[in-house]
Amino acid sequence: MYAETARSRTKEQGMKITGAKTLDIRFPTSWLSDGSDAMNADPDYSAAYVILTTDSSHGLEGHGLTFTIGRGNEICCSVIESLASLLVGNSLESLTDDLAGFWYMMTGDSQLRWLGPEKGVVHIAAAAVINAVWDLYAKVEQKPLWKLLSDMTPEQIVAAIPFRYITDAITPEEALQMLRSQTDHRGRRETEMLEKGYPAYTTSAGWLGYSDEKIRRLVRQALADGWSEFKMKVGLNLDDDIRRAALIRNEMGPERTLMMDANQVWDVQQAIEHMRELSSFAPLWIEEPTNPDDILGHLAIAKAVAPIGVATGEHCHNRVMFKQFLQANALSFCQIDSCRLAGVNEVIAVLLMAAKFGVSVCPHAGGVGLCEYVQHLSIFDYIAVSGSLDGRRIEYVDHLHEHFIDPVVIRNGRYMPPSVPGYSIAMKTESLQWYEFPNGGAWKNE
Amino acid sequence: MYAETARSRTKEQGMKITGAKTLDIRFPTSWLSDGSDAMNADPDYSAAYVILTTDSSHGLEGHGLTFTIGRGNEICCSVIESLASLLVGNSLESLTDDLAGFWYMMTGDSQLRWLGPEKGVVHIAAAAVINAVWDLYAKVEQKPLWKLLSDMTPEQIVAAIPFRYITDAITPEEALQMLRSQTDHRGRRETEMLEKGYPAYTTSAGWLGYSDEKIRRLVRQALADGWSEFKMKVGLNLDDDIRRAALIRNEMGPERTLMMDANQVWDVQQAIEHMRELSSFAPLWIEEPTNPDDILGHLAIAKAVAPIGVATGEHCHNRVMFKQFLQANALSFCQIDSCRLAGVNEVIAVLLMAAKFGVSVCPHAGGVGLCEYVQHLSIFDYIAVSGSLDGRRIEYVDHLHEHFIDPVVIRNGRYMPPSVPGYSIAMKTESLQWYEFPNGGAWKNE
Repeated sequence: MYAETARSRTKEQGMKITGAKTLDIRFPTSWLSDGSDAMNADPDYSAAYVILTTDSSHGLEGHGLTFTIGRGNEICCSVIESLASLLVGNSLESLTDDLAGFWYMMTGDSQLRWLGPEKGVVHIAAAAVINAVWDLYAKVEQKPLWKLLSDMTPEQIVAAIPFRYITDAITPEEALQMLRSQTDHRGRRETEMLEKGYPAYTTSAGWLGYSDEKIRRLVRQALADGWSEFKMKVGLNLDDDIRRAALIRNEMGPERTLMMDANQVWDVQQAIEHMRELSSFAPLWIEEPTNPDDILGHLAIAKAVAPIGVATGEHCHNRVMFKQFLQANALSFCQIDSCRLAGVNEVIAVLLMAAKFGVSVCPHAGGVGLCEYVQHLSIFDYIAVSGSLDGRRIEYVDHLHEHFIDPVVIRNGRYMPPSVPGYSIAMKTESLQWYEFPNGGAWKNE
Repeated sequence: MYAETARSRTKEQGMKITGAKTLDIRFPTSWLSDGSDAMNADPDYSAAYVILTTDSSHGLEGHGLTFTIGRGNEICCSVIESLASLLVGNSLESLTDDLAGFWYMMTGDSQLRWLGPEKGVVHIAAAAVINAVWDLYAKVEQKPLWKLLSDMTPEQIVAAIPFRYITDAITPEEALQMLRSQTDHRGRRETEMLEKGYPAYTTSAGWLGYSDEKIRRLVRQALADGWSEFKMKVGLNLDDDIRRAALIRNEMGPERTLMMDANQVWDVQQAIEHMRELSSFAPLWIEEPTNPDDILGHLAIAKAVAPIGVATGEHCHNRVMFKQFLQANALSFCQIDSCRLAGVNEVIAVLLMAAKFGVSVCPHAGGVGLCEYVQHLSIFDYIAVSGSLDGRRIEYVDHLHEHFIDPVVIRNGRYMPPSVPGYSIAMKTESLQWYEFPNGGAWKNE
């Protein structure tokens, strides 16, 4: 399946990045209330998209994107353009030979870092570029990203991780020990993944802007499709939340798993009060109950609403924040985002910390391409890092997959491992053209 | 001094904002190592600058800026342009009648907030625009900003504060009580400020890129100028830090106050180890010992290095982060930044929390215009919020003041209250022209 073609690989490794093209891609999702929640009333799901071109004889390109929800996508694109231009002229090998060094180069510009540091636009823009390099790397190695990562030695993995600012939680030596303890099990787990896939839950039925009728229809459809775990949006109005939770719980029955997501709308005390009212529907977790920066607030909520777990992460902007959420025991479910964190390198740092602290990683997905991205990360986590599926599942949302060359494959409510080389994030040329903002056909016809 | 001219005020209050002009202003400070520290080797001090024009019969304009250190300033400008455009057509009164509502409008765009939320470029850009509105407001009221704020009723002040996400630390009712308890003392403190000014310390002597000879000369000059508190940069190399600390301590003597600033270079354990070595020089505080997001890391350092205090804030991106630093008892000196936080409204929220938690506010200054900004905030804090000078001092750096129409006035190491209406942030027209990037004369001659 991933046959070694040593000669052509060696040849490609010497190849250079020759250019970078940035695209502002937006989907007019706000027209249908897809993706609507208590904080985000009218998102236009968007991608700040980058293509790294090369002198590869096979025409290989590295693709990467960062997800946004509309306005501001152009800002992201302009930062991506600056960062990607730093790569032009470099050989891929010069980057992959020092993956942590490459990461620091993309996130540590001595002047740009004032705009963060390691947060906001400069960080999510770095994610697109860093992920594009990993996509290219995986294509050269002729493996899907999860397989590339799972075949790296513990030493190689550790050499890709930015340990700066997290050594009080995990040292390179500890990480090495943890990774080495899993190597014997990698083969068996890979086989298991290829056969059964990785567990998932669906958010597709529970958007806040949908009518009760639409929600009922979607839950029934999802049950018929084999889903057993559902997430609903809450937080705009308590009476509505109770009515909709009753409706969904009634359709899905008492045995299946229900999650709730408040998308940051509550203050700390409010979150505690609302979840007391909603606890009778037995949610597994409450997601983003308050401001995503509020580690101590999440801790207070976690203590008050237990046994309901606290989940957060899609707006957790770097490994330093995740480190503290884990150190403080402020979350039960760690929802890494593949392009809020600055790409694969920083995600691996968080996967290792979560494994060390015994917290389940349940990646944030949906949006544009997030499902395509995170499947690789969770499968790698299972094979080589945490070695566990306990409490773990990937979010699934059924939007916009049709625009991807290698879209996710769901079977019986599980993600099946991708087999195409790369990070699965390349979009179809015609989609890139049609949805380019503001000149693509989708926006011209508005 | 601040004579009431009721008729013209009433007339100006009805005035509309008619346009917004954004300027990318950069000073080539990296050529002289001014501002160099362990993290920022080559800053080009910059301002993403905005001018709000009006239909005022007196030609009033609101000026605001956000400080950056070079690359990326253009990104800031483009976000400022988007945000400022939302104000065009509005009357000033419609904004000042609901100051908290105005703040939420500038920081809460449902799509742009994905790029933060409330952090990074979108937040510091909002600061420039919000401060420009306060500058305009103060000009219309014909008062310097500190006086405008100090004359507001407790109810008016509370109505300007974004309490979202901080009600677990301070409620509007508590804030009202605190402010009311100070009103009787406002008059006396104002007189005191006008006579004596607000205490300050200088960072001008201790930049990392300066030679020992230059540092010695600058410390001697500062002593001659009446300074008694000095800050030095540390963190690049321990031996150098020890040599330079000995030099400075020797020049200034054992009685005067020395601060140290590591600009985020250390991991937690490293910070503790380095400060053990540097403790013999008896620094009052260690500033930014590690990553600015690391609340729990600062707490660990604070416990380990006491009685040396931990200071941080110039990269503390919003009131939710400051809330936690205060709740966790992780800092002894709260270094608010006038344009890292989203302008005056959010700063007031932090001033009140710091007062409640009994922590001294020592604003970050220097850069471009930060001294001009923060003097207003500290003077207001003394007159109407904390009512205390205990442990409080404003940073002073002697760069770039010559470009401001109403530059700071320092007398005997203290900031003298500005008397010109506004927020003191307007730069001279010729400076705005000469330093505009990349087309101003300063950059053409490069």
